[in-house]
Amino acid sequence: MIEKAVILSTGDELTTGKVVDTNSAFIADGLFALGIRVAAVVKVGDDRDQMLWALRQAQELGDIVIGTGGLGPTADDLTTELVAQLLGVRTKQDDGVAAALKTRFAKRGMAFTANNLKQAVFPEGAVIIANPSGSAPGFRVELGRGKTLLWLSGVPHEMSAMLRESVLPWIVERNGSQSTIHEATFKIHGISESKLDDLVRPLDLGNVAKLSFRAHFPDLTLRLTVNGGAAQTEHFLKLRGQIKNILDDYIYADREVTMEEVVGQLLLNKQQTLAVAESCTGGLISHRITRVAGSSAYFFGAAITYSNAEKIRALGVNPATLDHVGAVSRDTALEMAQGIRQRTGATIGLSVTGVAGPSGGSADKPVGTVWVSICRENFHQARLLNLMVLTDRERIVQGTAQAALNWLRQLLS
Amino acid sequence: MIEKAVILSTGDELTTGKVVDTNSAFIADGLFALGIRVAAVVKVGDDRDQMLWALRQAQELGDIVIGTGGLGPTADDLTTELVAQLLGVRTKQDDGVAAALKTRFAKRGMAFTANNLKQAVFPEGAVIIANPSGSAPGFRVELGRGKTLLWLSGVPHEMSAMLRESVLPWIVERNGSQSTIHEATFKIHGISESKLDDLVRPLDLGNVAKLSFRAHFPDLTLRLTVNGGAAQTEHFLKLRGQIKNILDDYIYADREVTMEEVVGQLLLNKQQTLAVAESCTGGLISHRITRVAGSSAYFFGAAITYSNAEKIRALGVNPATLDHVGAVSRDTALEMAQGIRQRTGATIGLSVTGVAGPSGGSADKPVGTVWVSICRENFHQARLLNLMVLTDRERIVQGTAQAALNWLRQLLS
Repeated sequence: MIEKAVILSTGDELTTGKVVDTNSAFIADGLFALGIRVAAVVKVGDDRDQMLWALRQAQELGDIVIGTGGLGPTADDLTTELVAQLLGVRTKQDDGVAAALKTRFAKRGMAFTANNLKQAVFPEGAVIIANPSGSAPGFRVELGRGKTLLWLSGVPHEMSAMLRESVLPWIVERNGSQSTIHEATFKIHGISESKLDDLVRPLDLGNVAKLSFRAHFPDLTLRLTVNGGAAQTEHFLKLRGQIKNILDDYIYADREVTMEEVVGQLLLNKQQTLAVAESCTGGLISHRITRVAGSSAYFFGAAITYSNAEKIRALGVNPATLDHVGAVSRDTALEMAQGIRQRTGATIGLSVTGVAGPSGGSADKPVGTVWVSICRENFHQARLLNLMVLTDRERIVQGTAQAALNWLRQLLS
Repeated sequence: MIEKAVILSTGDELTTGKVVDTNSAFIADGLFALGIRVAAVVKVGDDRDQMLWALRQAQELGDIVIGTGGLGPTADDLTTELVAQLLGVRTKQDDGVAAALKTRFAKRGMAFTANNLKQAVFPEGAVIIANPSGSAPGFRVELGRGKTLLWLSGVPHEMSAMLRESVLPWIVERNGSQSTIHEATFKIHGISESKLDDLVRPLDLGNVAKLSFRAHFPDLTLRLTVNGGAAQTEHFLKLRGQIKNILDDYIYADREVTMEEVVGQLLLNKQQTLAVAESCTGGLISHRITRVAGSSAYFFGAAITYSNAEKIRALGVNPATLDHVGAVSRDTALEMAQGIRQRTGATIGLSVTGVAGPSGGSADKPVGTVWVSICRENFHQARLLNLMVLTDRERIVQGTAQAALNWLRQLLS
């Protein structure tokens, strides 16, 4: 039974402060949902002695050790070699992985240099963990005394795919049915993490249910997990229902999905098409919408109008409107949404205009003042977002895009 | 002489994945600038055994230990008690801190409850570290054998103030002037991490210089660090020059800066203005350009044309071009760049059209086929990017944006 884990992150970028390590939080979150306690997270640089020290500590402390990083082709990628040293085994090239690497490179017309073969070398006896999004596979080895080490790529999107597709299912299988977990995920918009915490605090969780929050602005995720298998199904369903009641409109999805995926699906279902006019968001809304594969079925395009002249030229905003009430105003937002809808022929026009800062704010239109408008058949409205609280440019832009997409979602639902 | 540090972060929120730990990266970055190597970063939950284990490991490994968290008034704040246990000393209330706490609470009209006095208790013999932005001060204690432990608040803005105002100055005083480090950063575009590694491998680093790579697609960073103070200046300058020679055109910046910041600065310097026509990148190029504060000085706007109809309407692409050679073609890219330039009046028009996938590819235009075009006075060209190697939609979009911006950078340089 796996109860205690140690997470290892390796790389000089972590011990020199050049990169904030998000991998270990992601892994800890995944383990938490399976009821596994993380005894420690240890980060060391690309240094033989420190890495061996970390491996030995982790082996001592955890039932499982999950490590990331150092699997690449370069000289500072030491993981395989040091794990083999820890285990007292040799390293060995896996011919299947080597062949797959060569094919991968050939397919892309890239030269296959000798150092790339390093990614096909593993400690003897290792089970290979597939990397569906990158070239370097990971591996799993037994550490003795029922302990296991699993090593993944340090590249976040590769790591997350490997964790989800290989590591977590392996843990579930290993821990057997008593570890079946009931799990519900809620994607939240419109309240802060501390407000969310206040709202769900009165819930009677008992000792098998856990709530976890994950705030990665502008995304906020609440997860309910209930351990204990079938005996706890009722408790789980009751809690899930209570959460839905309490949070209600703040929930934009009850599964792990992005806002743009929800909006895209709604546009498809309702046979609507969308065009966007962006000012302060500078293209982020369009970028998010088009991140979804297949979005060309409902997205016509956008005008990013970063000047008054462009608002007039590309969207037909009335120069008098800009003169009288300015670019950041209800009227300008309304005209932008109408303009992009009419010109593109999309059934829905969405517009955004605001002050993202750091400069450009004024007493009556401080940084964070944003107008959003939606224009469709028999509907043409604008809304003021007061995002002063977000303070910095990047967060105001991100928060605006999320709020605009959420409003569109509500209208389509 | 302080050479090696260990950073400890404590708190259940870190081991359950609820919060991404940014404190340790901030501290590591501050130490790196003083030439101090971080041997390890260790994170544990609010748990007696794990915390004591972490303290003992840190005491063993580091010349200094910098810890955060667990100084608050609640029951799960264990730091002071456990550090005293580690040292074999008692804890003791500091009357000055107790009085200051009471004053602080009274000033804010907050009730001073007994548990708040916990924040005035320190291990015997500790030197108090002031907390200019919060209620809980930190402390410094000697660990024996010339080693020192410094403990700070875990609240990021309190921690950073304490680090900057107390910890780093204390280290500088303690280490004297011989602790300077030489550092150079190179931002790279156009080669893979493994190719980069091949190119720099022949460098004669000696034992004080180190190269580290960081790949965060589409960004690739190479950093050279040389320890040893003034005696190593010449060695550092020689290596830096060699790297510049070897990598030459692959280097797009020699400091920690983004591609869009470099391009923005060049546009400003050359008094040029930009407008963009995006198809497969869906707004990402515009979003990146407008992430830079002040970009409205050189960025007019963009047309995101996700359909043929929009390419014709918003950019004036000739329908015959689309009929004969298709949307993903040299001619369409050329017409898009010219169209956006002419219509907006920007001095430079940049366009992108390609197949981001996962569907939409064909035998002669597979997923990853992308055309980029730039149109400015006396210059109107298009380039084919073969990005099949990137395989997934998100990476093709990201890679395209980076390559397009880099071409623009080269033309402006």
